[in-house]
Amino acid sequence: MLRSMRAGCACFFLATGWVSAAQDWSEEHLTVAAALQERALAGTAAYEHVSALVTQVGPRFAGSAGDDVAVRWALNRLGELGFSKVRTQDVLAPRWVRGEARVEIVGPGAQPLVAVALGGSVGTSEAGVEAPVVEVESLEALSALTPTEVSGKIVFINRRMERTRDGSGYGAAVSIRTQGPSAAGGLGAAALVIRSVGTSDERVAHTGALVYRIDAPRIPAFAISNPDADLLSRQIARQSGQHGASGKPVRLRLHSTARELPSTWSANVIGEIPGGERPEEIVLLGAHLDSWDVGPGALDDAAGVAIVMEAARLISKLERAPARTIRVVLFANEEFGLSGAREYAKLPQEEIDRHIIALEADFGQGPVWRVQSQVAAEALPAIAAIHQVLQPMTIELGGNDASGGADIGPLRELGVPVLDLTHDGTHYFDVHHTLNDTLAKVDAKALDQSVAAYAVAAYLAASKRGDFGRLTATTSASQ
Amino acid sequence: MLRSMRAGCACFFLATGWVSAAQDWSEEHLTVAAALQERALAGTAAYEHVSALVTQVGPRFAGSAGDDVAVRWALNRLGELGFSKVRTQDVLAPRWVRGEARVEIVGPGAQPLVAVALGGSVGTSEAGVEAPVVEVESLEALSALTPTEVSGKIVFINRRMERTRDGSGYGAAVSIRTQGPSAAGGLGAAALVIRSVGTSDERVAHTGALVYRIDAPRIPAFAISNPDADLLSRQIARQSGQHGASGKPVRLRLHSTARELPSTWSANVIGEIPGGERPEEIVLLGAHLDSWDVGPGALDDAAGVAIVMEAARLISKLERAPARTIRVVLFANEEFGLSGAREYAKLPQEEIDRHIIALEADFGQGPVWRVQSQVAAEALPAIAAIHQVLQPMTIELGGNDASGGADIGPLRELGVPVLDLTHDGTHYFDVHHTLNDTLAKVDAKALDQSVAAYAVAAYLAASKRGDFGRLTATTSASQ
Repeated sequence: MLRSMRAGCACFFLATGWVSAAQDWSEEHLTVAAALQERALAGTAAYEHVSALVTQVGPRFAGSAGDDVAVRWALNRLGELGFSKVRTQDVLAPRWVRGEARVEIVGPGAQPLVAVALGGSVGTSEAGVEAPVVEVESLEALSALTPTEVSGKIVFINRRMERTRDGSGYGAAVSIRTQGPSAAGGLGAAALVIRSVGTSDERVAHTGALVYRIDAPRIPAFAISNPDADLLSRQIARQSGQHGASGKPVRLRLHSTARELPSTWSANVIGEIPGGERPEEIVLLGAHLDSWDVGPGALDDAAGVAIVMEAARLISKLERAPARTIRVVLFANEEFGLSGAREYAKLPQEEIDRHIIALEADFGQGPVWRVQSQVAAEALPAIAAIHQVLQPMTIELGGNDASGGADIGPLRELGVPVLDLTHDGTHYFDVHHTLNDTLAKVDAKALDQSVAAYAVAAYLAASKRGDFGRLTATTSASQ
Repeated sequence: MLRSMRAGCACFFLATGWVSAAQDWSEEHLTVAAALQERALAGTAAYEHVSALVTQVGPRFAGSAGDDVAVRWALNRLGELGFSKVRTQDVLAPRWVRGEARVEIVGPGAQPLVAVALGGSVGTSEAGVEAPVVEVESLEALSALTPTEVSGKIVFINRRMERTRDGSGYGAAVSIRTQGPSAAGGLGAAALVIRSVGTSDERVAHTGALVYRIDAPRIPAFAISNPDADLLSRQIARQSGQHGASGKPVRLRLHSTARELPSTWSANVIGEIPGGERPEEIVLLGAHLDSWDVGPGALDDAAGVAIVMEAARLISKLERAPARTIRVVLFANEEFGLSGAREYAKLPQEEIDRHIIALEADFGQGPVWRVQSQVAAEALPAIAAIHQVLQPMTIELGGNDASGGADIGPLRELGVPVLDLTHDGTHYFDVHHTLNDTLAKVDAKALDQSVAAYAVAAYLAASKRGDFGRLTATTSASQ
């Protein structure tokens, strides 16, 4: 197989005409990259890593007992896999406890709904909240209401999320979760209930962090499952005049014991595959170790943890190490405030400057279908050359406006170029931030393909003669 | 369209050569049956009936407040749809309350599992049960254990249910739920946990009734979701010796507030489409009005309720009524002991004898893919003739060993012939007896096809010149 790939690479040199490939890499580099890809596609240990993390640890919300177990697990695992300089970096994380949430329709047609508190929500009083419901379809529709129409009521934002491959449906819908609580609170609402920001038609509610504005009352906020949102909406529609209906507004009863506790310590977990020639220069592969509390986070983000660990491990098995160091960073508390990412970005500036590029895996298991970047313009031919190696896996080349991901965002803002291997997100939001994010949803083949893409990209980045430049305010403004 | 169907029917007479069709029905009957089928396939109100029942009522477990609302709903609906003699028949039903159930893995790898109490289970003490787990793969494997191996422990039966079209996977697996509690209790187990008898890979636990034997201690019994069963099994496998594992047995902590209450009154709800010539003779269409408490029972059995109501309603709209009466019976408490079915079968024998055949819809929404029967041998040509009319909907002809369904079982035992229109059950057990049995899973087209099949079969049965004979001990023994 290695022979045929070598032939393929020779071809690649001749046919593509990319000056960059020849400038930045030797033929051996490209041959090794193609062989890495083949090796990963033939099967990796990524599924086994995911299985171990969700089985031996499970839910690992920042600051919880599971989070502590996860840090120990990751230290042991990186050690067993032969990583160097395995260590932690202390991270102070906010601590929030979900408690119990109850949402029920009151009165004729009384039914309990499947609900969760939004992450960071205040709880209710012990008596709970009971009030009529005002349904709106968007934040815009909510902002068109007057305080008189909303005051003392429960606002229900029933915005449906669209299923897309690139996750754009989430981006379009998630503001009802982040901005809805203060938008409703600012109008005097007693509480907020939103349709789950997710694509499942199962009866499962989707959590995720809210943001309270400083200038609005903090009201309790919940998500209900999509079938429950449809049910509530049907009841509301019926009450506006159908035969047999009482004509009275539909009322909800809410109860939540969610609460904040003092901040606690968590940790980023770091391990390295040392570079052979310029070990001080770093290619960063990131994923986050924490999960939401509601489930074991198999796709979010045990999958990412497994992909980056396994990609780096495959590189460590090569006969000749790449020039630069591959640093795997398993970030603490991505979900509830990016604490680990912010802490990591506080490394001394001269160490940040030695990060020549960063990649993150935090969008499920894959497969990867696109590579995009945010690098200096002069490095774009190198990105195109990396894409050429990845193309046999039917991976497209995107633009140079990639964000790279949440955990490497602070590095990007400090000028570190980013490469984005976009995972197929078509089914991701069926389970994302829910209790259904389990091993049953994990596909070993998709993981292997992602490992292949990350291994190729990381190896080539770590072997490249030149770097990817630095991002400036102008580069960043392009996104 | 009617013209083409008429031509089709003439054809049918000529081509099939069934003597029965000509003996038992006029050409007009067969033409009307075919037209009924077309009309239903063009779209019925069945989806709207399901939507109304799950929206306005929701969960309706026997004896619960929802059950009362459901009886009122059904009386109103049958009245609105133009049924005659709409009435209730009082039914005394056992009353069981699920309360809260908690199942969690203790110790390293501690995780909460998604669980429900099995229907009829006793609860635990307030302190709950905490004990090591013994995993077995079947009732047979459990019965091979000695009391010493099981005593004081929590038995975990991890038998996987197979997905099948005809529901046979359920029949093969459900004994772990019905017989497991007493099998484990008889060996001195402290409690039983079973893998859900369902095919979903979502994190949802499947309830359903257990049976306590008189000679075994009543122990608390739970079902956990399929992904949780896999998780527990992986933890158990790991503890038997893998690297890093403590080697100690996996322990579970269980808690349940399930309890029995005094029996309460529920009701069968009955409505009729009067026959034109022999109104005292009855073709029974049955479904059950109750649901499990965990969800709104859209497929189990709002779908069946809608199918039989709508099939009868379509027949009521015909220019000329069939000879016999179509009686729709919405049975009380199918799920937790068949109370309504048993009560109905206590009708005076002379009334039972006037039931010429019974059909039930209690296996989801369809589509119907097979017709089978249990009728006297001399009526088999008539069943084949009914099948001929249904065949354009790609419906197969099965054997004469049908059970017909649970609610008409007591009638069958009293000699009433049964016809079984088998629904496609491939996806039924993804949601059956779970909170996911919602309107989101309902397909209007499948319902319409089922309505078409029931309308045709009921109309032909009600129009048939002769009857279907009576079942004798010999006929019944054939199943």
